[in-house]
Amino acid sequence: MSSRTNLSQGRGYLAIPGPSVMPEAVLNAMHRPAPNIYAGELVDMMPPLMQDLRDVARTQHHVAMYIGNGHGAWEASLSNVISPGDKVLVPATGRFGIGWGEMATGLGADVEVMDFGKQSAMDLARIEERLKADTAHEIKAVLAVHVDTSTSVVNDIAGVRAALDSAGHPALLMADCIASLACDRFEMDAWGVDVMVTGCQKGLMVPPGVSFVFFNDRAAEVRASMPRVSRFWDWEPRANPEEFYQYHCGTAPTHHIYGLRAALDMIKAETIEAVWDRHTILSRAVWAACDVWGSEGTLALNIADPALRSHAVTSLRLQAPQATQLREWVQENIGLTLGIGLGMAEPGSPESHGFFRLGHMGHVNGQMIMGMLGGMEAGMAALDIKRGTGALDAAAKVIGGV
Amino acid sequence: MSSRTNLSQGRGYLAIPGPSVMPEAVLNAMHRPAPNIYAGELVDMMPPLMQDLRDVARTQHHVAMYIGNGHGAWEASLSNVISPGDKVLVPATGRFGIGWGEMATGLGADVEVMDFGKQSAMDLARIEERLKADTAHEIKAVLAVHVDTSTSVVNDIAGVRAALDSAGHPALLMADCIASLACDRFEMDAWGVDVMVTGCQKGLMVPPGVSFVFFNDRAAEVRASMPRVSRFWDWEPRANPEEFYQYHCGTAPTHHIYGLRAALDMIKAETIEAVWDRHTILSRAVWAACDVWGSEGTLALNIADPALRSHAVTSLRLQAPQATQLREWVQENIGLTLGIGLGMAEPGSPESHGFFRLGHMGHVNGQMIMGMLGGMEAGMAALDIKRGTGALDAAAKVIGGV
Amino acid sequence: MSSRTNLSQGRGYLAIPGPSVMPEAVLNAMHRPAPNIYAGELVDMMPPLMQDLRDVARTQHHVAMYIGNGHGAWEASLSNVISPGDKVLVPATGRFGIGWGEMATGLGADVEVMDFGKQSAMDLARIEERLKADTAHEIKAVLAVHVDTSTSVVNDIAGVRAALDSAGHPALLMADCIASLACDRFEMDAWGVDVMVTGCQKGLMVPPGVSFVFFNDRAAEVRASMPRVSRFWDWEPRANPEEFYQYHCGTAPTHHIYGLRAALDMIKAETIEAVWDRHTILSRAVWAACDVWGSEGTLALNIADPALRSHAVTSLRLQAPQATQLREWVQENIGLTLGIGLGMAEPGSPESHGFFRLGHMGHVNGQMIMGMLGGMEAGMAALDIKRGTGALDAAAKVIGGV
Amino acid sequence: MSSRTNLSQGRGYLAIPGPSVMPEAVLNAMHRPAPNIYAGELVDMMPPLMQDLRDVARTQHHVAMYIGNGHGAWEASLSNVISPGDKVLVPATGRFGIGWGEMATGLGADVEVMDFGKQSAMDLARIEERLKADTAHEIKAVLAVHVDTSTSVVNDIAGVRAALDSAGHPALLMADCIASLACDRFEMDAWGVDVMVTGCQKGLMVPPGVSFVFFNDRAAEVRASMPRVSRFWDWEPRANPEEFYQYHCGTAPTHHIYGLRAALDMIKAETIEAVWDRHTILSRAVWAACDVWGSEGTLALNIADPALRSHAVTSLRLQAPQATQLREWVQENIGLTLGIGLGMAEPGSPESHGFFRLGHMGHVNGQMIMGMLGGMEAGMAALDIKRGTGALDAAAKVIGGV
Repeated sequence: MSSRTNLSQGRGYLAIPGPSVMPEAVLNAMHRPAPNIYAGELVDMMPPLMQDLRDVARTQHHVAMYIGNGHGAWEASLSNVISPGDKVLVPATGRFGIGWGEMATGLGADVEVMDFGKQSAMDLARIEERLKADTAHEIKAVLAVHVDTSTSVVNDIAGVRAALDSAGHPALLMADCIASLACDRFEMDAWGVDVMVTGCQKGLMVPPGVSFVFFNDRAAEVRASMPRVSRFWDWEPRANPEEFYQYHCGTAPTHHIYGLRAALDMIKAETIEAVWDRHTILSRAVWAACDVWGSEGTLALNIADPALRSHAVTSLRLQAPQATQLREWVQENIGLTLGIGLGMAEPGSPESHGFFRLGHMGHVNGQMIMGMLGGMEAGMAALDIKRGTGALDAAAKVIGGV
Repeated sequence: MSSRTNLSQGRGYLAIPGPSVMPEAVLNAMHRPAPNIYAGELVDMMPPLMQDLRDVARTQHHVAMYIGNGHGAWEASLSNVISPGDKVLVPATGRFGIGWGEMATGLGADVEVMDFGKQSAMDLARIEERLKADTAHEIKAVLAVHVDTSTSVVNDIAGVRAALDSAGHPALLMADCIASLACDRFEMDAWGVDVMVTGCQKGLMVPPGVSFVFFNDRAAEVRASMPRVSRFWDWEPRANPEEFYQYHCGTAPTHHIYGLRAALDMIKAETIEAVWDRHTILSRAVWAACDVWGSEGTLALNIADPALRSHAVTSLRLQAPQATQLREWVQENIGLTLGIGLGMAEPGSPESHGFFRLGHMGHVNGQMIMGMLGGMEAGMAALDIKRGTGALDAAAKVIGGV
Repeated sequence: MSSRTNLSQGRGYLAIPGPSVMPEAVLNAMHRPAPNIYAGELVDMMPPLMQDLRDVARTQHHVAMYIGNGHGAWEASLSNVISPGDKVLVPATGRFGIGWGEMATGLGADVEVMDFGKQSAMDLARIEERLKADTAHEIKAVLAVHVDTSTSVVNDIAGVRAALDSAGHPALLMADCIASLACDRFEMDAWGVDVMVTGCQKGLMVPPGVSFVFFNDRAAEVRASMPRVSRFWDWEPRANPEEFYQYHCGTAPTHHIYGLRAALDMIKAETIEAVWDRHTILSRAVWAACDVWGSEGTLALNIADPALRSHAVTSLRLQAPQATQLREWVQENIGLTLGIGLGMAEPGSPESHGFFRLGHMGHVNGQMIMGMLGGMEAGMAALDIKRGTGALDAAAKVIGGV
Repeated sequence: MSSRTNLSQGRGYLAIPGPSVMPEAVLNAMHRPAPNIYAGELVDMMPPLMQDLRDVARTQHHVAMYIGNGHGAWEASLSNVISPGDKVLVPATGRFGIGWGEMATGLGADVEVMDFGKQSAMDLARIEERLKADTAHEIKAVLAVHVDTSTSVVNDIAGVRAALDSAGHPALLMADCIASLACDRFEMDAWGVDVMVTGCQKGLMVPPGVSFVFFNDRAAEVRASMPRVSRFWDWEPRANPEEFYQYHCGTAPTHHIYGLRAALDMIKAETIEAVWDRHTILSRAVWAACDVWGSEGTLALNIADPALRSHAVTSLRLQAPQATQLREWVQENIGLTLGIGLGMAEPGSPESHGFFRLGHMGHVNGQMIMGMLGGMEAGMAALDIKRGTGALDAAAKVIGGV
């Protein structure tokens, strides 16, 4: 037998932080003839779909669906409440916070970034301080990313609301839950979020293509006061349509609606609380392995404090170029695809090969996580990467509940 | 046997003017695990996909892909060349021309509609006259719908270019080919079109979810002179991406890309000229049947002049409420869904039940068209709708080539 | 445009007498991961599946499932009740009756064929006469095809039972319902059938791969008296399994079980009586068109008496080589595949090109039948085949219920 | 969070010894409309399919395809060469060897079982001795299971041929490769095998439903001398058909043919040698983990000698009822299904809960195996089953190639 025996032929596992693994039920639901878009089943599906989306977001308020990706949801949310010249505050904890701010800049907003680095959560005290300093209430909105997919930090969104309240500041609290919804616990209404954006391709387990903006009555009032909102982005007819085509401002994303229906049925059957619990345990298993690996050598979790780590994605460091070598080895040899590092170093630079990420969001269970971690152990063995011993046993204990 | 025997159990036929019937090859291509969005097959697929799209549009110039529907493409195209206050001319021949104008209004444009009614094509002389009168060249763009899906009229886009040239007017010629692309002949470069928008769910045979803006260098220059273009709509990085994610401003519409690849493969294998020819013959068969039916009773083609009829969609009149009764009968009894009338009368009014439409776009062949027409004959027989005799034989002759 | 414009690109229609058109619901049900074959859902599915099969066959008795096709079911049924040397009577009305007899010969049976030709049903009087002549009761079974797929004749199975009873003959009545089940009315218990065989790929709408033998207690007694029955064919453990694997004598046909479940759900939802009614009306529409076509020229229904025609398949004659030319034209030009003639002439002989068949079984509705007939009209027009005028209007009237 | 957090929602992994995990390419190939069974693509597919099957079996001789499972292939093979009263020798090493013998008994053969127990391979010396004692050459065939799926032992088939040759015995060598083909190395011609049976649902990665009998000219001669072979089982027309329907003795297994085509394409692309190598390494990884686990506590590989272990399936012992408890825990809690023990103890007895099996056949790669083993570790942790430490690291080393 050749020493180059390849062990990749089999079911591939895409363990990147989105798009996530698609359930068979979702793909099957999307394998269907085009439906009528003027009457019948498709039309009847929308109201309960909207309600189930609200339930997942833990809100009693409004939701607008967009054919689009996360960037589309960013622009949609901003387009309803931010006019050129308006000021927004962006407390950034990674690439995606900065990206949302850039979208605002592109729309003519005056964007102030508070950068909390790539390994920390937002500093709520500094945010509150900044808000208190804005005595003229020029800041119209705070754009807060719940989980920044690049750094895998989770931010305390309820804490941002507390900071706003403590400062007596009327700015809208806008949250990005693209990476976190249906993975990390999120409570829109209880946490005082005014606007929330998310996509379908992570915790919602549907191929990329639709995204969502949730908003409450405070946000609706701000939108009502806007001089102009583009017809495509206007959330008002989408959230309160008189005709079916208004849900989607034109032709409906027919097949995505069926896929989303199947995914929401799965979430309802499991219950959102159980979904959160599952992600909690699985991420602890990932961390347990990483802690053991990191006890020798250079592998390290990007976020040191477990309380600040997302349950959907894990960012890691590994001495360059080993992070890239490990990703390439598991992809080529055993059917496992890990996520690239993002926003941690100049793309393509030598340093960039020292970062990678694990996605553990959505349709993911115990045996999958053990396969991902086991594949990493095999890759590190193959590449002779220095690491602690017993990482997989540690992870298995967490999954085994002991 | 009961007199109420239902004959609908079987393969349904959705003969509405979009979304069109989806080929198995397209649905199968979309039934796949999520791919890596950072490297590998998906990334490599984009350049040839863009080239094949250009070939279908008959252009050597640029194309930007958007996750979105036709309305999204409308807004995308406008957002790149129209600023608030800019003037656009909309020569309307149906609901969709007016709709594109409304999107421009929503973006702050100064929109002038020339309404040519619901049964006629654009009057090129009047357009030329209007352009000549605009000596200050305030009109920045002419928004011309190639085929208006509501009326099924086909407009002479090359003629609009001639009018612009004859008037020596520098306005951009923007064409809406949402209903017509890959059905009715369209030649972007030869016809002097600067910007063209279309969707994926009609002639391109893919479930709704992506749309396209094609543009030439003249249009690119106009965009370059814009004070601001939103990051999401900006066609520049989408058409000339340095990184893969720029094609789609964020997460790619992974499954639609695979579906679109399958559809473009089918079109390439048939050749776009053969696709046009097929639609030509099939639409003639539809008209032949309608002419016979219309020889007695009230059924009538909306567009009297065959030269002005689209090969993708046919709008029909039938004394209210028979149009609606016919649609409902074939849907409930024999598995055939026809399109509702759109834009011809107040929705829900008694008059609105006197219009309907047939879609014959995309993945459609001779036996399907005979099934659609035969189903209509059965429905008219069931409802005792007055009509000429021999319509199906007439259609069969056209399909038989005699 | 070329005179050779091809109109076939679109959804193909396979209108052959089996395999029939597969419903999306069936194909989707079969697109699934392998299930556990020792416990869980698959195991639990079998008892209700067997009951629903019994309901379709209108029997309270036993059913054994086989991985196999119709020929497999033939051999299975014979293997349980016929030993080498046993005598069977085969009243043949086409190729398939003769084929079942040949299978019996292959198993060592003494086969006596009563050939009633290719255009007639069984002559019950002659059968009764033959049975009366068998005073020694040497004939152990009568193999009666309900619908012979080659000739499309339907035989009076209850009449064969009456002949047996009138003759006081104890032979088993074995019926082949491969072409007819869930298309033509069939009542196993009421008609006194002892053994019935069928397949999954016609009225049951599932891809070929499983077949069935139904049997009553009389047949079970005969089987109990057999000196030896092969373990694979033995229907006893399949019909009364103590362990799951006995249903299928080894590994279960996992995906077919899911497909069959989906198909039976459709039949239950429609009701078997409504399924029969649908096939009745649709076959009348086919005959109405053929009657008009045949009023001039050579096209003729193989079975003259409507009461003797199957509702699942129609055999036709058309002056050679026009039958073959028509089949080829509609296949190549408009996406319609018709069935070849079978058993009517030497395969490949000039005469063989004068026969063809239409399948109208299973997942078939009014618009499909109109597409099939309309496609035939187009083909005859293209080939200038002499025929009566107005065939499609006649069919549409039947489907329209007038 | 509840202590009962369930971690099973995600992609299930069916790690039983068949049916194996189905590739997407196979399932997609089977999701298609019914094809014409008289002409066209399906008909053209058969000759290359038969050749590719021969290549996988490493034979230049003949192959007959059957709609059926492994038991069907057993009966098919016997039916072509064994008549009632013929004597066959069955050197059994597990449940499946005995099962094949039982099928022979069911056909009237005189079956002599040499039982080598459940933990050993065949004793070739004893077989040779028995053959030499058969001076009258009454033994017509030796039924040798290559890999017995119940015990996971691999037998030396070339050694059985050597025993026959050394004894100068003319009996046919018949091999059962149902569990081993396209997993464990097998060389039909080089090893002197006369008849080989296999199924599609293990190494061939297709849903259960078709099976195969390969045979050489010696076997064909024996079949030619048979007094009678049933038409359904006769391999002659299936292997050398004059008409397409003879390949399958009636209606073709249309969708399985497409699925099998996709699977054989995958095997060709990887090469059969690479497929064997992959299974070799993956099984060594499984054994490495089991060796470590077994260093403490009761877990033990059923076959002590690694040279006698299959690369497709692994039978294990674990103190009752822990084997069953482990299977149930991983199924209910983390989405992993392991195989039950088979043939090792009375079904349902207390002892039966001390055996289980792992399937690692077909579409299986490095990350999947690590997921299976990792899941087992988690389950043993959860159930506090005594075991050695470091099993997963040991397996990862093998997969990592160190």
